[in-house]
Amino acid sequence: MHDRGKPPRPGEIVLDRVPGTGDGPRIAFIGRIRTPWGPGDAPRNLRQARERGKPARILLEPDYAPGLLGLEVGQAIVVFYWMDRARRDLIRQNPRHTDGVRGTFALRSPVRPNPVSLATVRITGLDAAAGEIEIDAIDCFDDTPLVDIKPWMSTIDVPPGADL
Amino acid sequence: MHDRGKPPRPGEIVLDRVPGTGDGPRIAFIGRIRTPWGPGDAPRNLRQARERGKPARILLEPDYAPGLLGLEVGQAIVVFYWMDRARRDLIRQNPRHTDGVRGTFALRSPVRPNPVSLATVRITGLDAAAGEIEIDAIDCFDDTPLVDIKPWMSTIDVPPGADL
Repeated sequence: MHDRGKPPRPGEIVLDRVPGTGDGPRIAFIGRIRTPWGPGDAPRNLRQARERGKPARILLEPDYAPGLLGLEVGQAIVVFYWMDRARRDLIRQNPRHTDGVRGTFALRSPVRPNPVSLATVRITGLDAAAGEIEIDAIDCFDDTPLVDIKPWMSTIDVPPGADL
Repeated sequence: MHDRGKPPRPGEIVLDRVPGTGDGPRIAFIGRIRTPWGPGDAPRNLRQARERGKPARILLEPDYAPGLLGLEVGQAIVVFYWMDRARRDLIRQNPRHTDGVRGTFALRSPVRPNPVSLATVRITGLDAAAGEIEIDAIDCFDDTPLVDIKPWMSTIDVPPGADL
């Protein structure tokens, strides 16, 4: 991962001020995501994670478990998680796997002003009372902090005219 | 919107501690979303907003404008915004438009521990140097704080086996 102070690659732009050091609202971590992945062996994205065929588990903090009422096995959800190891101050990036420099908002990189990542996954197991969800796959490191879960809805989450 | 202190409806559960009052990381607001909507006339969701046929604009803070490099008119993006008027401490809700009580994570309600909402939209105009994007529609109130923009990708953002 990038650290503040590491020199930028050619074409990269570093912000003067590190985002999140001001007076914005605070994120509450509502649980953790348990995965088979760590630095060095993590899949590069959700599609790669799915190809490896390993499920993952979401563990909610006990206070938040009542929030699962109404979710069902087989349903698709959007999982929001906080990339707590990612640098927040690069606004243009020169990733090794793409052609040249791109703006942070044109990339899915974890490096961004607010490092919230998304995974659209399926519920494969559910113990709502215990605050546990099993999902088909996810690409984040083990123990990544959980930020939100929403039901995925095709009427909202697929853009008009999508080429599928 | 719900306020802390307003009595819960039947079946609703209020958390003992208000999320976001601990020591979690801070969100940086990176811009604002200008829309035609305010309290009283806002569409109920993105589909309704789209039916009204009114575009909206995203205005980035100047420091963040270089992050738009690589985005293009016609492209689909996921816009993340902060529902700054929404109560954060309801973990079960009894909304008027649904059948009975549901967990917050089974709803798309802005009322949630971390009130980050998503809109999957199309870029209809772009002035990257000025940090301005025109989008086809969005359902949030005028002047809603912007949190992130990501390129939408069907290989990541559509769940396996989706019935479309």
